[in-house]
Amino acid sequence: MSSLKSVIMAGGIGARFWPLSRRDNPKQFLSLTGSLSLIEETMNRVRRLSDPEDIYIITSQKYTDRLQGLFSDIPAANIIYEPVQRNTAPCIGLAAAVIQKRSPGSVMAVFPADHLIGNEKAFTTCVVEAAQIATERDVLVTIGVEPDRPETGYGYIQTAGEINPGCRRVRTFAEKPNLATAQRFLESGDFLWNAGIFIWRTDFFVENLRKHLEEVHDVIEEIQEAVDTPDFNSVLQQAFPRSPSVSVDHGILEKSTQVAVIHADFPWSDVGTWQEAYLRSQKDTDDNVIQGEVITVNSTGSYVQGDKRLIALVGVKDVVVIDTGDAILVADRNKVQDVGKVVELLRDEERTEYL
Amino acid sequence: MSSLKSVIMAGGIGARFWPLSRRDNPKQFLSLTGSLSLIEETMNRVRRLSDPEDIYIITSQKYTDRLQGLFSDIPAANIIYEPVQRNTAPCIGLAAAVIQKRSPGSVMAVFPADHLIGNEKAFTTCVVEAAQIATERDVLVTIGVEPDRPETGYGYIQTAGEINPGCRRVRTFAEKPNLATAQRFLESGDFLWNAGIFIWRTDFFVENLRKHLEEVHDVIEEIQEAVDTPDFNSVLQQAFPRSPSVSVDHGILEKSTQVAVIHADFPWSDVGTWQEAYLRSQKDTDDNVIQGEVITVNSTGSYVQGDKRLIALVGVKDVVVIDTGDAILVADRNKVQDVGKVVELLRDEERTEYL
Repeated sequence: MSSLKSVIMAGGIGARFWPLSRRDNPKQFLSLTGSLSLIEETMNRVRRLSDPEDIYIITSQKYTDRLQGLFSDIPAANIIYEPVQRNTAPCIGLAAAVIQKRSPGSVMAVFPADHLIGNEKAFTTCVVEAAQIATERDVLVTIGVEPDRPETGYGYIQTAGEINPGCRRVRTFAEKPNLATAQRFLESGDFLWNAGIFIWRTDFFVENLRKHLEEVHDVIEEIQEAVDTPDFNSVLQQAFPRSPSVSVDHGILEKSTQVAVIHADFPWSDVGTWQEAYLRSQKDTDDNVIQGEVITVNSTGSYVQGDKRLIALVGVKDVVVIDTGDAILVADRNKVQDVGKVVELLRDEERTEYL
Repeated sequence: MSSLKSVIMAGGIGARFWPLSRRDNPKQFLSLTGSLSLIEETMNRVRRLSDPEDIYIITSQKYTDRLQGLFSDIPAANIIYEPVQRNTAPCIGLAAAVIQKRSPGSVMAVFPADHLIGNEKAFTTCVVEAAQIATERDVLVTIGVEPDRPETGYGYIQTAGEINPGCRRVRTFAEKPNLATAQRFLESGDFLWNAGIFIWRTDFFVENLRKHLEEVHDVIEEIQEAVDTPDFNSVLQQAFPRSPSVSVDHGILEKSTQVAVIHADFPWSDVGTWQEAYLRSQKDTDDNVIQGEVITVNSTGSYVQGDKRLIALVGVKDVVVIDTGDAILVADRNKVQDVGKVVELLRDEERTEYL
């Protein structure tokens, strides 16, 4: 078995972290719960799995210089940009094309750049096990996290029979459920959170692309031929936008019968909202999470990020206050899933200075 | 009867309007409910009662230039500063000294600079009536507002027998009550809100100072002798600080038996907090009061003053957000009486840049 190729998907914005997340400073570059940015934490985890020359980043053109600066030991040829965003199936297809051209039949593991993982050792063990299974079998391996609450913000995976210890066949994928359904999932015991981490052989993935997403496959095949030739960038620019926009979950995993899920043994979060950033941060004695120059009077359960000016909280409970200099967000901590609506409004009004 | 002398007390800070109210920009200079500042609204009301040469402003030295600039027709000799703050009895004593020296036996009416009054015509009628009574009788006249709620933020006046239509003797003054007491006051029907507006003859007031506040009287008498002499400023600087600090309510009105109260027929508020500024402002369809560049998503009942940067509210109810450029307040609208505690903390820490 050749060494594991690790792919970090780092093209998103993370609109629900507005006003901190911007087109020029998306979620993966933010330090939401500690001192390192999410992508630095992801890279640190990935370094336990792959050597630098086996680590790939799929991103947007505007982040390539910044990523190369952050991770100078990663080969420039491994930092690949999507000319436009086409969701995860074409994104992973692009990575698979490059890896398949360079090292046919490799196993690739795909990681979102902006998730949090609590136990690095358990994470490493889990991915190594998944890679072993993907080497030996024609199977698309996903990672499923044991739910500890009826979370409505995640997708779920229903498991079927065991094929290896800790690894089961997937019965079905379920979209983000409502609360009653999430409660039922939790009680049933056979639903896991879909962690968005995928492990498979590049040749088997490309075969699945051909079978389930022929239009994406054709684009990826065209790009694969140009990998490491002088034409690569121009072919990428011209071909990639022709791909339909489709997620790997919806376009392949929900259709394939050859999908397995490894039961994850590590705490995981996609840190999708300020609420989760709060829940996963260190609290003070008033259950506040404070960064910057902040005065609190009878205020609890709040998450404040400032450092541009003095912020005073008086008598508030469970608020989120984010000051970025040019914009201030004041939100109820339990309603922060609506922060994306501010970004939509700003887009509709073409107020690009705030995007 | 000589013409009525009107005195505006404009020396306070209004700490509960932090971060907008500052030492250099106290509450009376703020536009809390409309386009004019509170002191401009007060001056407009007072102009219906007195000619410019009969209008006096007692203030702090640091506001004299700004006030002269705002009200250029008021004689400079009528804008008098307190070298230090000594509460209302010495403040009104200082005004009485100047007026008594220039026009002995005048009637003076004293108005806080930073209150709101809803019906200017009723206000004028009420003060003219009070001045008439003060001319004819040895009596200290106050104005009492019919309460419409069990307000715990105001002082109350209990009324006794009528001495003129709409004018009663005062039985007692009551400090800010707790809610149960305020409820009892409201139900009893013989308690009125103390509007902090006073009308009396200067000679009768000075006599009361002598009787009830001898130390204040001695200082005021010394200053009175120097009024309109070249020594005035140096005498003021040297004598005024020797006065004890005492309110006219506590030091005179609660002790005198010659106090009357006129039943006010106008809406009144001391706009003591952001909550009151909210209640007295025009609301939009979501019951928000918004100034500046603000986006709201599912947010109601909130008061936002910004114009320094974009402010976005998401899912909040009844919050106050004030952005002044160097500081941001985020408060529960029903807890804004605690805003003064932020100012206390800043004072304790000598962070004068925010005071």
